[in-house]
Amino acid sequence: MSYPHPFDPITAAEIQLVVQILQKNFPGVPLRYKRVDIQEPIKKEVVPYIEAERLSKPLPEKPSRLLYALFHRLDDGSFYKALFNADKKTIIYAKQLPKHVQGPIDLDEMEEIEKLCLEHPAVKDEIAKMKLPPGVTVCTEPWMYGTDTAEQNRRLFQCYLYVIEINHPENNHYSVPCRFSPVFDGVSHELIRMDYLPTGLDHSVVETQPWKPVKTVQYAHALLDEPVRQDLKPYIVQQPQGASFSTEGNLVSWQKWKFRVGFNSREGLVIHNVTYDGRNTFYRLSLSEMTVPYGDPRAPYHRKQAFDMGDVGFGITANQLSLGCDCLGVIKYFSGHTVNSTGEPVRLENIICLHEQDNGLQHKHVNYRTSTATVVRNRQLVVQMICTFANYEYIFAFIFDQAANIELEVRATGILSTTPFDNENGETLPWSTNVGPGVAAPNHQHLWSLRIDPAIDGFKNTVFYEDSVPLPVSQDNPYGVGYVAEKTVLRTSGSAETSVDRSRVFKICNPDVTNPLTHKPVAYKIHTVPSQMLLAHPSTFGYQRAGFATKPIWVTKYDDGELYAAGEFTNQSTSSEGVDVWVARKDPIENEDVVLWHTNPMLSAFGLTHNPRPEDFPVMPHEKISVMLKPDGFFTKNPALDVPASTQGFNQSVLHQEPAPQEGCCGGSGSSGNLKAKFFRRID
Amino acid sequence: MSYPHPFDPITAAEIQLVVQILQKNFPGVPLRYKRVDIQEPIKKEVVPYIEAERLSKPLPEKPSRLLYALFHRLDDGSFYKALFNADKKTIIYAKQLPKHVQGPIDLDEMEEIEKLCLEHPAVKDEIAKMKLPPGVTVCTEPWMYGTDTAEQNRRLFQCYLYVIEINHPENNHYSVPCRFSPVFDGVSHELIRMDYLPTGLDHSVVETQPWKPVKTVQYAHALLDEPVRQDLKPYIVQQPQGASFSTEGNLVSWQKWKFRVGFNSREGLVIHNVTYDGRNTFYRLSLSEMTVPYGDPRAPYHRKQAFDMGDVGFGITANQLSLGCDCLGVIKYFSGHTVNSTGEPVRLENIICLHEQDNGLQHKHVNYRTSTATVVRNRQLVVQMICTFANYEYIFAFIFDQAANIELEVRATGILSTTPFDNENGETLPWSTNVGPGVAAPNHQHLWSLRIDPAIDGFKNTVFYEDSVPLPVSQDNPYGVGYVAEKTVLRTSGSAETSVDRSRVFKICNPDVTNPLTHKPVAYKIHTVPSQMLLAHPSTFGYQRAGFATKPIWVTKYDDGELYAAGEFTNQSTSSEGVDVWVARKDPIENEDVVLWHTNPMLSAFGLTHNPRPEDFPVMPHEKISVMLKPDGFFTKNPALDVPASTQGFNQSVLHQEPAPQEGCCGGSGSSGNLKAKFFRRID
Repeated sequence: MSYPHPFDPITAAEIQLVVQILQKNFPGVPLRYKRVDIQEPIKKEVVPYIEAERLSKPLPEKPSRLLYALFHRLDDGSFYKALFNADKKTIIYAKQLPKHVQGPIDLDEMEEIEKLCLEHPAVKDEIAKMKLPPGVTVCTEPWMYGTDTAEQNRRLFQCYLYVIEINHPENNHYSVPCRFSPVFDGVSHELIRMDYLPTGLDHSVVETQPWKPVKTVQYAHALLDEPVRQDLKPYIVQQPQGASFSTEGNLVSWQKWKFRVGFNSREGLVIHNVTYDGRNTFYRLSLSEMTVPYGDPRAPYHRKQAFDMGDVGFGITANQLSLGCDCLGVIKYFSGHTVNSTGEPVRLENIICLHEQDNGLQHKHVNYRTSTATVVRNRQLVVQMICTFANYEYIFAFIFDQAANIELEVRATGILSTTPFDNENGETLPWSTNVGPGVAAPNHQHLWSLRIDPAIDGFKNTVFYEDSVPLPVSQDNPYGVGYVAEKTVLRTSGSAETSVDRSRVFKICNPDVTNPLTHKPVAYKIHTVPSQMLLAHPSTFGYQRAGFATKPIWVTKYDDGELYAAGEFTNQSTSSEGVDVWVARKDPIENEDVVLWHTNPMLSAFGLTHNPRPEDFPVMPHEKISVMLKPDGFFTKNPALDVPASTQGFNQSVLHQEPAPQEGCCGGSGSSGNLKAKFFRRID
Repeated sequence: MSYPHPFDPITAAEIQLVVQILQKNFPGVPLRYKRVDIQEPIKKEVVPYIEAERLSKPLPEKPSRLLYALFHRLDDGSFYKALFNADKKTIIYAKQLPKHVQGPIDLDEMEEIEKLCLEHPAVKDEIAKMKLPPGVTVCTEPWMYGTDTAEQNRRLFQCYLYVIEINHPENNHYSVPCRFSPVFDGVSHELIRMDYLPTGLDHSVVETQPWKPVKTVQYAHALLDEPVRQDLKPYIVQQPQGASFSTEGNLVSWQKWKFRVGFNSREGLVIHNVTYDGRNTFYRLSLSEMTVPYGDPRAPYHRKQAFDMGDVGFGITANQLSLGCDCLGVIKYFSGHTVNSTGEPVRLENIICLHEQDNGLQHKHVNYRTSTATVVRNRQLVVQMICTFANYEYIFAFIFDQAANIELEVRATGILSTTPFDNENGETLPWSTNVGPGVAAPNHQHLWSLRIDPAIDGFKNTVFYEDSVPLPVSQDNPYGVGYVAEKTVLRTSGSAETSVDRSRVFKICNPDVTNPLTHKPVAYKIHTVPSQMLLAHPSTFGYQRAGFATKPIWVTKYDDGELYAAGEFTNQSTSSEGVDVWVARKDPIENEDVVLWHTNPMLSAFGLTHNPRPEDFPVMPHEKISVMLKPDGFFTKNPALDVPASTQGFNQSVLHQEPAPQEGCCGGSGSSGNLKAKFFRRID
């Protein structure tokens, strides 16, 4: 097999290699594979290699290609992690994990538990009590069990069930939740308990009753009562000369940017080794966790707290994308591989897409004396992944632009998680919104962590923040209008708060490289939105297992094993083994290899924890949040000055033909902004 | 003349009518016209008219068409405001304004003061002292004088001068500021004072010295040392069937939206009478002020505080746009009229543009059981105006989408306001950033006010806010995870604060119309970013004249005369006559005709008051902020469900041809998201 780049995703051959090695090491033992993937390469081995690539120098020895596996022994149910050296085709270790560790849910397991649930006699009994009319059936969605006790030695699933009113591949069963919810042991397949769901104004529950038919609120075009809009005209992005990017394997080059597209089952899309015009900017950018706690205080809903990455994975839930549906223009797709439960490699086709988009104006200036305009448009490069977590969809896009900005845009869409609610007589719940007949959607938060491993002109960086603070009124500020940026350096690993009143901005700089113009260290800053953190009470498991979600900024000293904000194993966890634990080392982080972890509430985008609207059902118009990494004294001037002007010859726009056609054209330098000349065109 | 719609902009004929009436009323008196424009029509007259239009009922009597003028008598220098009835061709009043009132700066006046300055012997003397080499000249930019004393009975201009190193229409003179700044009386044309600018680390100034040549930092493509990028490929938006919108005069119809595009010299773009699917949403949306205070504490910079709308106007500074430069696709332009100083109407060609854009996915859901996807793209309608305020550019866009959202997106670009600074030896200033040799850009804020005059299913509305607050741990919240939205109604006119920790969201509802699903009043909410307010000390004029900029939310009871957040006359004002004054009436505002004023710091977009970066020079990559108005219980479900699916047949995307061509196509229902099926495509 040809040797992949250190940052390349795992190949099908590598998955087969791991499985072969494990079969040799566990002769005769039946194994169930949960994950086989690349292990993040050791940074100190990789840096000399990618630096040689960047500087076009002879390449040093390749870093070790490491792979790992998570698997169960089916003979004794024990759970293992094993590490491999792919070059040497050897196993480095295989260690049994503690009993309380629950690995992530995989898709084969989802199917298995669904089947188990629907075929279980106790569940069938409950379904029978509903006395469903002919043609009406039920389906189930096994949920991660969450945590309400320190005893988590059993692998548990909470199965929510829904009524399928219409036999159609896009029937919206979330609109009709059932009122009971069995809990199963995922290993022994025992029914642990039949939970009944509160359906009224309080915590009380009743036995399953015959189903009162309600109309499903449908989202699919084929199932709508109303006609589809007829007045939307096509909007086609044409790139007659093709895209402005080029790719070589997973290496992407576009407009002075170079980076590598990575992929793994857990994180999905990862961006490695980002350089701009040959300068290092970021070593690795990734989503590192997403927790979704719900605000309905009643059992069993109190346990609804998904860790979408740790409990399931962004990679294995990534949509396989099709031309023309998710992006416009010229599209490049990347594929990946994962393993199924029997150890076979599975190709994940087109799970990442790459395309350019136009985002309006990048910069413009009109010299009003001469009526000459410089106009430059904002072309962007988008690397995108869309993940479906049962009901919800997340759209993750890293967006690069020509002014050396990198944006992580996250959109939430899909379907709200629902609960049954008897609301015929106008009842409302304080923690939920009625979204249909007999159905409510509870308040919830989506708190995710963006892991920023910086390399601002080198691999040793410093994180600091600057506050905009008024100068005291004094003889140095006699008119009381002066204000300055007050700098605070983070010297030991820890967390930091945002501040609206001080307009706090976090920056990452390289103290060893001084900007010749500003005489300050070269830096990037983080543009983000101060937002509400985790609302669960500090005494709860929900809080303790999601420490990362309690502070917006964390900074750690780099460690090869620390990639996931809530720790490696989140499923049924009782406490965090993540960033809140690592910062307690109080490592020195000034001019060191540092990692900044930024917690951002998805739907708190613009000051809003997600208290659902009826407009968010049956499928949510996307909610968007973005975090930007922007150069701040990294360059000595606007790096996009050399982007060509926006001209009609290039853009070929068309004048709207109603009510009276007119012709227009841009001047040579891309003009548009006649300010003064208008005063010479007088009307008589 | 044909009768315009009540919300239509002023016509050339109406300007001529006003001038004729004034000439008749001031016989033999030479007048200098500052503004002739429409007066906002009286709301109680307009509402029955637009309601009849909305409901297709017989139209009642037309509201009075009112016009106003601001002008100087040139015989005695007095300043007047006059009001006219255009239907009756009569003057309603002409009143002399108090001596301290300074009207806005107009473009003819700018030219006049520029000429006055450059031809003044004292200025010529200073220029001579600079001993400029042959071919190097200077230009000036008259600034609004600002305020540092309660005596403002003279109309003053602070002229900043700049060196023009190269005779080119896009030479960036802001890169080379001169070190002296004369102050002129704009009426008597006297030189009031020659200010010398501090150029070092403290407040001290020196006499004008010979100019030490420095290289201008240029932005124009023709003047760059570096080559323009050659690797950006064309990106063409094709709309072969034309745009999806239609217009009839200034009435725009698009995807269930109807609204009227308004324009006037002061506010520029105004959006009137917004309905969605025949339902009222907003009566009027407008920018109501923008103040830009600077943070350099030294004289004369302490007076730099522009009120871009009140001191100048967004309408008269709006760029005349050209096809293909500022927008892609099919473009419709609107034009307007203003008056010049001699009373002639001036046509402002193409100052507003209208076009559609694609903004990625609106909603998506994949049923993972069946691998069927519903994908709907987010088509938007953009109404845009770009204003040039000498050095700066603002791009204002009202963006409508198919899920009934309205976004105001504001981009700041253009050139930083600069100060001379001797920084040869690595000097830095705590309130500025070095942006070139001998030049610094001081910290500043851009605080603007969005005036929201709502009509949520009717013209009487209530403003309230909701906070997301944890429930106390109790028997009703035994697991400590519950949280609810806590509602606070604003009952009397006043201000309100944002709150990050409580994830506060402001909503406007109609208490008389109940959503049948949520059993709560129909509402829209405001999606915005909590941001730092005005930094100037409360004792300063800079603070007192910009009261609106000290709180993020103000709510007043509607009054026809109250359109501008800092009051009608801001130029050299010493105190506000705006929203902070009006709220003190303590009007009842519950279920009343209310107006919500939202102050937003432009460059505090994502937690950032504008402390300049070197990357913001010589022309700034845009900084963007957006405020969204989103339905929240206005509908009973996602209003965009009926938008057709995103399909390859409609979008015609193309596969990137490197390295290996592949074919792809969407399924019938617009599919993209094969999740489960991938587990059947195994690799051998």
